[in-house]
Amino acid sequence: MTITITAFEQSPDGGQGLARDTRVRWALEEVGQPYEVRLVSFRAMKEPAHLTLHPFGQIPTYEEGDLALFETGSIVFHIGERHAGLLPDDANARARAITWMFAALNTVEPTILELATARLLEGDKPWYEERLPLVEDRVRSRLNQLSARLGGADWLDGAFSAGDLMMVSVLLRLKSSGILNEFPNLAGYVVRGEARAAYKRAFAAQLAINTAKRPTG
Amino acid sequence: MTITITAFEQSPDGGQGLARDTRVRWALEEVGQPYEVRLVSFRAMKEPAHLTLHPFGQIPTYEEGDLALFETGSIVFHIGERHAGLLPDDANARARAITWMFAALNTVEPTILELATARLLEGDKPWYEERLPLVEDRVRSRLNQLSARLGGADWLDGAFSAGDLMMVSVLLRLKSSGILNEFPNLAGYVVRGEARAAYKRAFAAQLAINTAKRPTG
Repeated sequence: MTITITAFEQSPDGGQGLARDTRVRWALEEVGQPYEVRLVSFRAMKEPAHLTLHPFGQIPTYEEGDLALFETGSIVFHIGERHAGLLPDDANARARAITWMFAALNTVEPTILELATARLLEGDKPWYEERLPLVEDRVRSRLNQLSARLGGADWLDGAFSAGDLMMVSVLLRLKSSGILNEFPNLAGYVVRGEARAAYKRAFAAQLAINTAKRPTG
Repeated sequence: MTITITAFEQSPDGGQGLARDTRVRWALEEVGQPYEVRLVSFRAMKEPAHLTLHPFGQIPTYEEGDLALFETGSIVFHIGERHAGLLPDDANARARAITWMFAALNTVEPTILELATARLLEGDKPWYEERLPLVEDRVRSRLNQLSARLGGADWLDGAFSAGDLMMVSVLLRLKSSGILNEFPNLAGYVVRGEARAAYKRAFAAQLAINTAKRPTG
């Protein structure tokens, strides 16, 4: 059955790979599954047809036969459950890989989202400059713990898994902030993720859409 | 094998059920699995022994034989995968229930966490009063979408599932804010969750620890 995902017609990041469809593309590339992409405009995302697929009016979604899913974590997990390459065979190692997926999304990403929100939605507010260091320190606090756990290892728990895919994707959001470079082992971890052939294919595919749609200058 | 979870020796909420061990207790009660609880002090949570179990120095954790997990979403999923009562048998319905777990944790909870963080960590800042309505409106925006999807249904997708357990748990954080009552169908949804016998047992168990530990006077 054909897999169809949705992506931004024009990504807010212009193709830096931070839109969440990149995470799903990466997962599909890791397991070697072909997929089709349906592009969605900002207006269409908030219209009934798309809201039926995604109640929060976002991308990506995932359709395969009569199954329709939203929420990146769930889609990546679904792909990992159906195809070899993202979740270990050993039951305990599999449960720990899933743990890292949830940790990326519910423990690490919220503080990083708060930083993004501060910049995007409160950058013009009088408190922005004074508040920013507090938000950055909350990010640092999480990264400090994550860095201690990763130590000198390549990946979070043995071989690369969906947990690493999600954690690297979350950390990539910090690339422009400079904070990531305060933690050399985490910066190296992200570089290892970006160096994977599957990530490179996913990144190139989302970039191609965004550069095709944008005026060149 | 005995299941052992960790919980706060003294919960910051004094037993209102907002500490995340309540979510795990609720899941274990739904599937009828007995469990033991090891209480952890704030100091012990940041010490090496606990950090080995939970790299972010939080509760709950889950130990069963040689398996050790952290992260509430992962623990609840693990319980749902091993025991009947939290995830549907039908493969597509199961994938959708998992989707709602991730949606609760990565799409709905982050805005609610931001509101909690504003109150807890920035309540004494000069910008607090002016900024609060912005943060509250971001919560409302998500609740509006969730309310539209739930409509008049009892649960998010057919029968009660781990997705509802997680979404109700996330929404419970808003109880004291008054925002939840702006969305009568969501308020009713939370009441239905709280009315479940398994939730009541979980709530009573965490309350017993907190009232036993606190001075009464």
